[in-house]
Amino acid sequence: MARNPARRTELLDAATDLLADVGARGLTFRGVDERAGAPTGTTSNYFRSRDELLRELCDHVFTRLTPDPAYVEDRLQAPPTRELETTLMRDLVDRAEADRAGHLALFELRMEASRRPELREVFTARFRANLQAITADHVEGGFPGGPETARVLYLAMTGLLFEHLTLPGLHAGSEAELAELVASVVARIVPTGPET
Amino acid sequence: MARNPARRTELLDAATDLLADVGARGLTFRGVDERAGAPTGTTSNYFRSRDELLRELCDHVFTRLTPDPAYVEDRLQAPPTRELETTLMRDLVDRAEADRAGHLALFELRMEASRRPELREVFTARFRANLQAITADHVEGGFPGGPETARVLYLAMTGLLFEHLTLPGLHAGSEAELAELVASVVARIVPTGPET
Repeated sequence: MARNPARRTELLDAATDLLADVGARGLTFRGVDERAGAPTGTTSNYFRSRDELLRELCDHVFTRLTPDPAYVEDRLQAPPTRELETTLMRDLVDRAEADRAGHLALFELRMEASRRPELREVFTARFRANLQAITADHVEGGFPGGPETARVLYLAMTGLLFEHLTLPGLHAGSEAELAELVASVVARIVPTGPET
Repeated sequence: MARNPARRTELLDAATDLLADVGARGLTFRGVDERAGAPTGTTSNYFRSRDELLRELCDHVFTRLTPDPAYVEDRLQAPPTRELETTLMRDLVDRAEADRAGHLALFELRMEASRRPELREVFTARFRANLQAITADHVEGGFPGGPETARVLYLAMTGLLFEHLTLPGLHAGSEAELAELVASVVARIVPTGPET
């Protein structure tokens, strides 16, 4: 297998965009070559099979969606209140709007897992690691509510991102309405005090 | 266009199952014919275009997923408390497990809307009508919390169903854990009193 890391990342970024644009069924090695502007056959030099590409794609997208550590450090200067949680969730929605393809690709990967049990285990492990990291940040960061608060907030934000990115007008017709919706989600799930 | 209503419903059910199985890109008239065990060309006698099929499919799936009125009447004998809301959400998850294809088809239709602005308006209107009906049932039924409680619960249940149907082991390894998760979602979103 070819091993130029920068080229590999280019191919994975191209595959993410292609997956978002055409869905799992449209993701072919040839399509990724074209999307990346690479010679035909390049993708097959980097990935043994379409399933290997999909598994690496899952890791790649999570890495691509991870916020910049400097941003995190800056935000966490503020005390871990419901207000800060609201800010963090608004930032998440902003990042999702800035990288729609990344989130749509994660939706497509989940749809593909529903059809392909052989991918399910690896994807489940990756999504579980993400949920565990989110939960640890919430609990160890001293945010109000325990691990279940973090999980319910995660589920509501997953529903919100899924519908907002696929049917943009359904929940919010403007940036202001969207910000209000996020505040409403956090206010209904995250307690004001340390634990409920 | 051909007009046998029973045959039309058969084709729409076959299209729902096919959409769940292969994704939006795999949905072809010929595939629906095969899935329905109908002669080649039947689906094209009922739907003018693939987009017309997708628009009707959206309506069809919502109708297919609507619970039996006798069940609803029976459940609503109990007072509209958080406990009844928990029961209703558990029933929703049970129905989703019994008709995975219906829910997976609704996920696929949303993914297709993300790519196809010409479908977005019709789908958004249909999803909005569903959300409005859910909100009206909550508020007029006298359940605790206002319309925003209904919406946040809807978003969290959307996230839960999406991940549970695509990555079944992610949130719950058993029926008991799944029931607990649903109870946790409702307890964190629906207040005990009439309004918060």
